[in-house]
Amino acid sequence: MFLDKDFLLNTETAKRLYHEAAEQCPIIDYHCHINPREIYEDRKYDSITQVWLGGDHYKWRLMRSAGVPEKFITGTETTDKEKFMKWAEVLGKAIGNPLYHWSHLELRRFFGYEGVLNRDTAEAVYDMANAKLHEAGYSVRGLINMSNVETICTTDDPVDSLEWHEKLAADKSFKTAVLPAWRPDKAMNLEKETYLDYVQQLADVSGVRIDSFEALKKALALRMDFFHAHNCRLSDHALNYVMYAPADAERVEAVFKARLNGTLPTPEEENIFKFAFMTFVAGEYVKRGWAMQLHYGCRRDNNRTMFARMGPDTGFDCVDNFAPSAQTAAFLGHLEAQGCLPRTILYSLNTNDNAAIDSILGCFQNEKAVGYIQHGSAWWFDDHFDGMVDQLKSLAARGYLAGFVGMLTDSRSFLSYPRHEYFRRILCRVIGEWVEEGMFPDDFDTLAGIVRDISYGNAKRYFGFAEK
Amino acid sequence: MFLDKDFLLNTETAKRLYHEAAEQCPIIDYHCHINPREIYEDRKYDSITQVWLGGDHYKWRLMRSAGVPEKFITGTETTDKEKFMKWAEVLGKAIGNPLYHWSHLELRRFFGYEGVLNRDTAEAVYDMANAKLHEAGYSVRGLINMSNVETICTTDDPVDSLEWHEKLAADKSFKTAVLPAWRPDKAMNLEKETYLDYVQQLADVSGVRIDSFEALKKALALRMDFFHAHNCRLSDHALNYVMYAPADAERVEAVFKARLNGTLPTPEEENIFKFAFMTFVAGEYVKRGWAMQLHYGCRRDNNRTMFARMGPDTGFDCVDNFAPSAQTAAFLGHLEAQGCLPRTILYSLNTNDNAAIDSILGCFQNEKAVGYIQHGSAWWFDDHFDGMVDQLKSLAARGYLAGFVGMLTDSRSFLSYPRHEYFRRILCRVIGEWVEEGMFPDDFDTLAGIVRDISYGNAKRYFGFAEK
Amino acid sequence: MFLDKDFLLNTETAKRLYHEAAEQCPIIDYHCHINPREIYEDRKYDSITQVWLGGDHYKWRLMRSAGVPEKFITGTETTDKEKFMKWAEVLGKAIGNPLYHWSHLELRRFFGYEGVLNRDTAEAVYDMANAKLHEAGYSVRGLINMSNVETICTTDDPVDSLEWHEKLAADKSFKTAVLPAWRPDKAMNLEKETYLDYVQQLADVSGVRIDSFEALKKALALRMDFFHAHNCRLSDHALNYVMYAPADAERVEAVFKARLNGTLPTPEEENIFKFAFMTFVAGEYVKRGWAMQLHYGCRRDNNRTMFARMGPDTGFDCVDNFAPSAQTAAFLGHLEAQGCLPRTILYSLNTNDNAAIDSILGCFQNEKAVGYIQHGSAWWFDDHFDGMVDQLKSLAARGYLAGFVGMLTDSRSFLSYPRHEYFRRILCRVIGEWVEEGMFPDDFDTLAGIVRDISYGNAKRYFGFAEK
Repeated sequence: MFLDKDFLLNTETAKRLYHEAAEQCPIIDYHCHINPREIYEDRKYDSITQVWLGGDHYKWRLMRSAGVPEKFITGTETTDKEKFMKWAEVLGKAIGNPLYHWSHLELRRFFGYEGVLNRDTAEAVYDMANAKLHEAGYSVRGLINMSNVETICTTDDPVDSLEWHEKLAADKSFKTAVLPAWRPDKAMNLEKETYLDYVQQLADVSGVRIDSFEALKKALALRMDFFHAHNCRLSDHALNYVMYAPADAERVEAVFKARLNGTLPTPEEENIFKFAFMTFVAGEYVKRGWAMQLHYGCRRDNNRTMFARMGPDTGFDCVDNFAPSAQTAAFLGHLEAQGCLPRTILYSLNTNDNAAIDSILGCFQNEKAVGYIQHGSAWWFDDHFDGMVDQLKSLAARGYLAGFVGMLTDSRSFLSYPRHEYFRRILCRVIGEWVEEGMFPDDFDTLAGIVRDISYGNAKRYFGFAEK
Repeated sequence: MFLDKDFLLNTETAKRLYHEAAEQCPIIDYHCHINPREIYEDRKYDSITQVWLGGDHYKWRLMRSAGVPEKFITGTETTDKEKFMKWAEVLGKAIGNPLYHWSHLELRRFFGYEGVLNRDTAEAVYDMANAKLHEAGYSVRGLINMSNVETICTTDDPVDSLEWHEKLAADKSFKTAVLPAWRPDKAMNLEKETYLDYVQQLADVSGVRIDSFEALKKALALRMDFFHAHNCRLSDHALNYVMYAPADAERVEAVFKARLNGTLPTPEEENIFKFAFMTFVAGEYVKRGWAMQLHYGCRRDNNRTMFARMGPDTGFDCVDNFAPSAQTAAFLGHLEAQGCLPRTILYSLNTNDNAAIDSILGCFQNEKAVGYIQHGSAWWFDDHFDGMVDQLKSLAARGYLAGFVGMLTDSRSFLSYPRHEYFRRILCRVIGEWVEEGMFPDDFDTLAGIVRDISYGNAKRYFGFAEK
Repeated sequence: MFLDKDFLLNTETAKRLYHEAAEQCPIIDYHCHINPREIYEDRKYDSITQVWLGGDHYKWRLMRSAGVPEKFITGTETTDKEKFMKWAEVLGKAIGNPLYHWSHLELRRFFGYEGVLNRDTAEAVYDMANAKLHEAGYSVRGLINMSNVETICTTDDPVDSLEWHEKLAADKSFKTAVLPAWRPDKAMNLEKETYLDYVQQLADVSGVRIDSFEALKKALALRMDFFHAHNCRLSDHALNYVMYAPADAERVEAVFKARLNGTLPTPEEENIFKFAFMTFVAGEYVKRGWAMQLHYGCRRDNNRTMFARMGPDTGFDCVDNFAPSAQTAAFLGHLEAQGCLPRTILYSLNTNDNAAIDSILGCFQNEKAVGYIQHGSAWWFDDHFDGMVDQLKSLAARGYLAGFVGMLTDSRSFLSYPRHEYFRRILCRVIGEWVEEGMFPDDFDTLAGIVRDISYGNAKRYFGFAEK
């Protein structure tokens, strides 16, 4: 039956594993895009439209795909209720889309609503959810508490003051650890028009005059120290692809200085600089014991009209299928040879890269960690039933699934924690099918141990997180 | 049981959806390669070999793969019966190939033959089918009538006179609408040796002296008007890949004029010209409300010996895996920014492109249509059970399946309409599995509405077809 | 139940096909990397660690992925028993990995051990297996005899003396035919530092002074004659990708002579030379009736530190996703046009190439063989349940599965023959599902014929092997 307690659990093994091993594990959401200020200030919402549709470009895309006029999606001339009604109508026919599952899981887990959402039920759901949102416990902290979240890592720019992380760390009344994660894309993307402004910001906040690549590195290292002191333990990078473009230090310096003087790099120079940048930060991560996340395979802001109107992260990105696995392997090989290969998680937005990634992992594993190099969980356009199953099976067939650090929401919403539930159900399902097909022994203790590790324990050990 | 009434329908939901919702829908075959003259003249066949094996390079490939000598495939020195006997022998062991399903569906739906075709039954089937083909009702129009086809779109060159379409439109005794579709590949492919001859034909038929790219555009626009007056509502293009190669108008003009003077373009010039050509026609499609189909990912005529003997479309093409999604997105983004992005259907012959395509769609959707940009149905080498399932699931997971315009035969044969049945059964199967897995509510009305839309209603609305 | 007699056989059809048709077929292992000397000398083993973990880089990778220190993997400072204990501990949690299945199949088929291997059982298994290895019948020949192997093709360099093959051929007491296979990679890879040394070896063994590409070809042709006289019937090549880079003979000669003079080729020159080399050997294969295997899609030796320590084939290779299908098709088209296209088997390490490969096959099939061009069995990182299923289904959907030459171990171990069992079970499973889904008639004789052909008969006919 739709979304019942055994949702996606199609074997007895899967049911037992989920209900006895996975379900109880706290959540470690080691990569997301939520705003720590909203946690500290314990934001409340006027309507479910705000918390659900405000900023969620996954939902916006689906509405556009169904022909909904933009004014009902992001327009200011329509009401929260009008937007919700349109969303409900579209969702009601969104068969096969993960938003259908996520949205209904969220309605059940947070609002206790067991029905379906569609055009007919939209108004009642809207009223019910809004009423709940005005109850005690439906603030941001309340939603997090309901979700049994032990650790959250946000995504933060090197120039960030981390003031909200600091306040949260000091607030003993809130049990979830909220840690910063280092995302220095703006310091790397020297081809952007706004790069010099950013460099100035970084100079200001670090107190380093940035007149060379060496100085940039010094400024970044100081900021990493600052982040480390605020319990940052991992980084994240958005790359077009993982490139290998070695050049001597003089050349890199020349590209950077030219940029400081206003000369944009050629594509080759851009790669040279980014490769040098990545090599540097990787070495710094090793020194600090940080993990490095590499997200790649995305082409952003494809719709120029909408970008001009709405800016980035509004639903106009797509998969970029150019990512030479030879360069990915060469980059990691370069770091390894230099002794500066950190624990690394590879995420490609192109599912075709799964096999290549899983074969690359094995070239760089070592005794410093279980799964020193990881294949990140299925992500964004692949974060759905089939995408997750493919990632799990590819990793298992070509690597060591039992060492996988598991799920993260990557979300901008405080209602997204049921995606961990979704992942865990799929994990238990895949394992259950293997067991009941006779492909692995029916040994509950071993299986439950694997499930608990992937749901919780591996991430905790891999990143070195303590409970707050 | 093999190919029984519930073929491929492995759940009760699927059975009910297929038999109560899908089966009754008329067929809109919006892309195929059949000859309108044969419809108008209501061609009859001497033997099943003629209608089944004459021109069907899918079957030829399979026979060659099984080691059948070419003389039994396309040779003139063997009889229809000898060819059929060889075909039957190969088909009898073609497990897992869609031709096995298509062929048996065709034998059942058109000839009422419920058995299997293999070496042992070949002769009896041959005689039975040939006898039927001499009965009334087994002409081309009869076969179409048997198939409940509401609309057919053929594939036509800009220089085509459309005389058979005109006659068919005037013939009120035939209820199926047979519309032309615009395929201007020959006007674009300036790298071909025969290009200048083609330009002359286009000049003759349009009455425009083509001495510049501007003049070429004028001639094409006139022909589009002519096609539009004959109820053409969509175009089709065969591209190596969807390229992005902007250049200023002078450069494009120079490339075209050089070609008129006999100078072949460089690969870069070829891309520049084709990009300008595609941008132009896309704008014209917007003006006329036409949809644009882009078929890409094919490398043609790989076997030079056989090409020299038999020409194109004889079974020697393959998947080309070079199709940068960044360029596809950039091309659509360019059209969008110029205000000349028509309703567009993307078809790649490389299944690896599914995820990229489904992520590109969402960047360009808008309120002008449900599914303004579409991911075309699995095609040619992918037009089989797994290929269709993959396309449906990828589209559903990354987009809005309920808005999908569905199936087309892409066929050269008048016996191919059961491929719509095959598609619909697979669609109902996929949906049925989701429902019985608890992944979507068991709400028959909603499900049946989605199935009817994908089987029929969406295409009718998307292309703006009226019944004849 | 785990790995019982119906392991992977999830339908009655599959069970019957496996037990009545597949299981009895002898094994033709037409591609592997075992050492013929060890067969001739009938090597015995001191411990299961030697035969299982000595040289098996698949297992090494898995251990490294689980964080096992290298000293327990390849170190000399640990004992066989210590290594085995670590391996058992890792394997016990290697859910979803083919090593789990292979290892347990090997324990059952060779050692009669029906339990599982994990940390708890490691010591008992170690003692049991070692005791068996000291029994009569547990020598190399004994292991081969237990496996019902009719023919083995090793992988041999053109300079090899083939003395062990010669001795084995003369030894009538051993019933398995052990044939050489020609792998001339070292003669092609002129970019390697060691190339000139190799050319000298080839000159010495062939008696040809190699001072030109023409002379190299002459030397190779003489060695092919020698291999042919020792019953070699197929070749094998490891390519980065299958390239198309035609150039005139003078240019090729210049590249080769420059190399003889110590000048390394540019990447373009490297491709030109390799293309000319491949074209030459292909023509020689046609003359001798040999088949040509092309293995591509691998990037080797990615971990420089470990390469420096351990050399090649130690577990540091990965998938290279650059393999333009257009060049593969153009290469085969070039051979075809020159009349020098041998029977060819294409293997890509990148599963994304399946569809492209299966569409390329059909362009070059002919009446000289059933499946003249073949899609090789899923290989290395893809040699697991899902990888095999994908290869079988893609081949079936786009080609003629019934003509497939089937499985090979590609292994360095004498315990790997159960991989044929694994493959056959998967084959029967896939076919069984099709039949019980109504996608193919339940005609046992036809199905059993197909299964026997793919398990045994096709390879025997395709390669022209006689029994010893």
